[in-house]
Amino acid sequence: MLLVPDAVELILSETEALPAQRLTFQAALHHTLAAPVAAREPVPGFRASIKDGYAVLSSDGPGEYEVAFEAFAGAAPRALQPGTVAYIGTGGPLPEGADAVVQIEDTAFLGADAGGAKRVRIIKQVSPGYDVRQVGSDMAQGETVLTAGQHVGAAEVGILATVGATEVEVHRKPKVAVLSTGDEVCEPGAPTLQLGQIRDANRAMLLAAAAATGAGVADLGIARDSAATVEAALDRAIAEGADVLLTTGGVSMGDKDFIKPLLERRGTVYFGKVKMKPGKPLTFAKVPVPEQNRSLLVFGLPGNPVSSLVTFHLAVVPCLRKMEGWEEPRLRRLHVRTAMPIKMDPERPEYHRAVATWARPEGAAPGAVCGELVAASTGGQISSRLLSLRSANVLLEIPQASGMLPAGTLVSALLIGDLSAMPVPEVPAITTLPS
Amino acid sequence: MLLVPDAVELILSETEALPAQRLTFQAALHHTLAAPVAAREPVPGFRASIKDGYAVLSSDGPGEYEVAFEAFAGAAPRALQPGTVAYIGTGGPLPEGADAVVQIEDTAFLGADAGGAKRVRIIKQVSPGYDVRQVGSDMAQGETVLTAGQHVGAAEVGILATVGATEVEVHRKPKVAVLSTGDEVCEPGAPTLQLGQIRDANRAMLLAAAAATGAGVADLGIARDSAATVEAALDRAIAEGADVLLTTGGVSMGDKDFIKPLLERRGTVYFGKVKMKPGKPLTFAKVPVPEQNRSLLVFGLPGNPVSSLVTFHLAVVPCLRKMEGWEEPRLRRLHVRTAMPIKMDPERPEYHRAVATWARPEGAAPGAVCGELVAASTGGQISSRLLSLRSANVLLEIPQASGMLPAGTLVSALLIGDLSAMPVPEVPAITTLPS
Repeated sequence: MLLVPDAVELILSETEALPAQRLTFQAALHHTLAAPVAAREPVPGFRASIKDGYAVLSSDGPGEYEVAFEAFAGAAPRALQPGTVAYIGTGGPLPEGADAVVQIEDTAFLGADAGGAKRVRIIKQVSPGYDVRQVGSDMAQGETVLTAGQHVGAAEVGILATVGATEVEVHRKPKVAVLSTGDEVCEPGAPTLQLGQIRDANRAMLLAAAAATGAGVADLGIARDSAATVEAALDRAIAEGADVLLTTGGVSMGDKDFIKPLLERRGTVYFGKVKMKPGKPLTFAKVPVPEQNRSLLVFGLPGNPVSSLVTFHLAVVPCLRKMEGWEEPRLRRLHVRTAMPIKMDPERPEYHRAVATWARPEGAAPGAVCGELVAASTGGQISSRLLSLRSANVLLEIPQASGMLPAGTLVSALLIGDLSAMPVPEVPAITTLPS
Repeated sequence: MLLVPDAVELILSETEALPAQRLTFQAALHHTLAAPVAAREPVPGFRASIKDGYAVLSSDGPGEYEVAFEAFAGAAPRALQPGTVAYIGTGGPLPEGADAVVQIEDTAFLGADAGGAKRVRIIKQVSPGYDVRQVGSDMAQGETVLTAGQHVGAAEVGILATVGATEVEVHRKPKVAVLSTGDEVCEPGAPTLQLGQIRDANRAMLLAAAAATGAGVADLGIARDSAATVEAALDRAIAEGADVLLTTGGVSMGDKDFIKPLLERRGTVYFGKVKMKPGKPLTFAKVPVPEQNRSLLVFGLPGNPVSSLVTFHLAVVPCLRKMEGWEEPRLRRLHVRTAMPIKMDPERPEYHRAVATWARPEGAAPGAVCGELVAASTGGQISSRLLSLRSANVLLEIPQASGMLPAGTLVSALLIGDLSAMPVPEVPAITTLPS
């Protein structure tokens, strides 16, 4: 039976980045660039003052000078005559004839003389170029400022605006359709449940998980246990333009599994099981859509809610990331120390849900500056217990073995959440230098 | 002059969580709960099989039995007579009369007898409750499954669906209005620039940064340098229902600063400078909106794009998080090792932009299982050079000091990006146990 890393490699080898589309730079937020972006003009495009102060000819040196004019940012340019200075604001264009800036703190304003001309004392000797940003010093004309494969966050939106790149090529984001299956599955808002019925957690959860990756989503509802309804849902996924179809349920019981036979008939099933806990029944298939010259990737996820979300993170997230153009679509791995003993499984590697936080190692001296990631288990890991995923931000990679892993063991972990919201024990700022 | 941590505390003390609103559980994604959620019924609501197999009366023991019926998930319940068994699927309701499940791997199907009745050999002796999820074992009726202050991610959407909580109380998200100021500032798409003009990077960048926190946004455009246009923009922010107004520019030059005098006249200015690099000119104010019985918080951010985004992360993000209900709104701090020497500033603590990634320490033996966060500087840190924020996911807290901080120094850092997309050096999975 495949292990998770092998399954991921197989999935990625069958996944392609989606084609590029042209978006405005604002709409490109959270997309991945499909083409590099170069600066079409130098930044700054003119010699700009770094400070509020006086534009000077540096060779004039300290002394008393007439303030000939004010060179504000955005103001019309004038040339500076030797023996005079010009008031200049931060970002203002250095006047022709000036070659440096003396900040206001190194000057003394003397007031106006009898003729009404303002005068200032320049106190500091500066060298040519002092407190001046030269043309192209932030970005050279033609410089590649963003490469293909770059994620566009807020800073990158700012970079695009700075170089006037108001339209960019980004990869299209995938559309994910989600289907629940099973006669026992009810809408979450059902007033009461009959014996054997359960509320459908998987569909809303997977739609949310897909949306959180930035994918578009389509809700295919609940399919009853019949070959016809499941095939109709597959066709709806195709009709809605989905790139990926997620189904849950119906993949563990032989004679009620309507998914795998359908996928075998309509496409190629790459695997139907992965050696992992939770989530052993996991199907991956590709269904050709010849009339659109493309394929639909199908993940048959387990019906237990924990298994479905864990397999989503492990198997589907890398696939979606590759589709949207990530150069490294795999989950990020890091090392964490376990906060409590963890029971291992002798038959399967386990992906144990945990909450990682940055903490000082136990026993560290007060004020000690070393820290590490410590992971607290979310408790009972039975695959029906969705509370084991509450607040979880990592999946601990627990090796297949008997017995207990002691607290304080260093284990590898896959990042499935944003550490920006991790719990906060006291973590000291480092405010002094190492001796 | 205030230091950043003091400024943040002052801001947070003047910030309140926004009122709760009722949303569907799907729409609650990425919000923070304003009230706890309890399970209104036990989960599971019935004794459910953990495996595909046979429902048995455990005291019957191993032997040959008639398969009286099939108890699929969602099927109508029947009672089991002692001396018979029932086929049961994963998640199916245990029939009355049965008290355990024997998984299919521990049985042998014997086919139908002469009368057409199916028979099976039960091989394994199981104890009462074996492979059965008891009523309420995942969630007890009335159990608090999510607390106030909980962030709603995909798993939490699933938990809400599981307990049928289709509407929940969450904090409203703030609305952020963004204004650029300055006669020199042009739209990003301006065909050509005149001497002294710059493209407006700040506005699109801050709108993107605010949107990335989940806030609503309002684009107030560019205000020319006049008291009237800046005041008109303030009134538009109020009219649009903004909770927070961000302005950039116009806060460093004395006689062209139209923001601070306006804020002093219309409200309370708490501070106008913070001792930090980049971004010293940073104004924080509160403007009462008496007709709506609320206040508008105003941040006058510096005009340099790097300074504006860094001060956004340091000062504005915690404020927005508190508004949307985060219990711990401060940026997460962790410790990282510097990948290269870093020049310190003798006059101000510096928030140095860097890209942190998880790596094995240099010199670690191949296969060694320890890792740590290593931070590479984004290069030249001049506050006009927006490329210093490209891909940055941490701000290194560089102490105020002279000289160089050597490579390999442990420094504290504030998390400003999602480590899920950090660069990936080879990080080994830990697949064997410690000896």
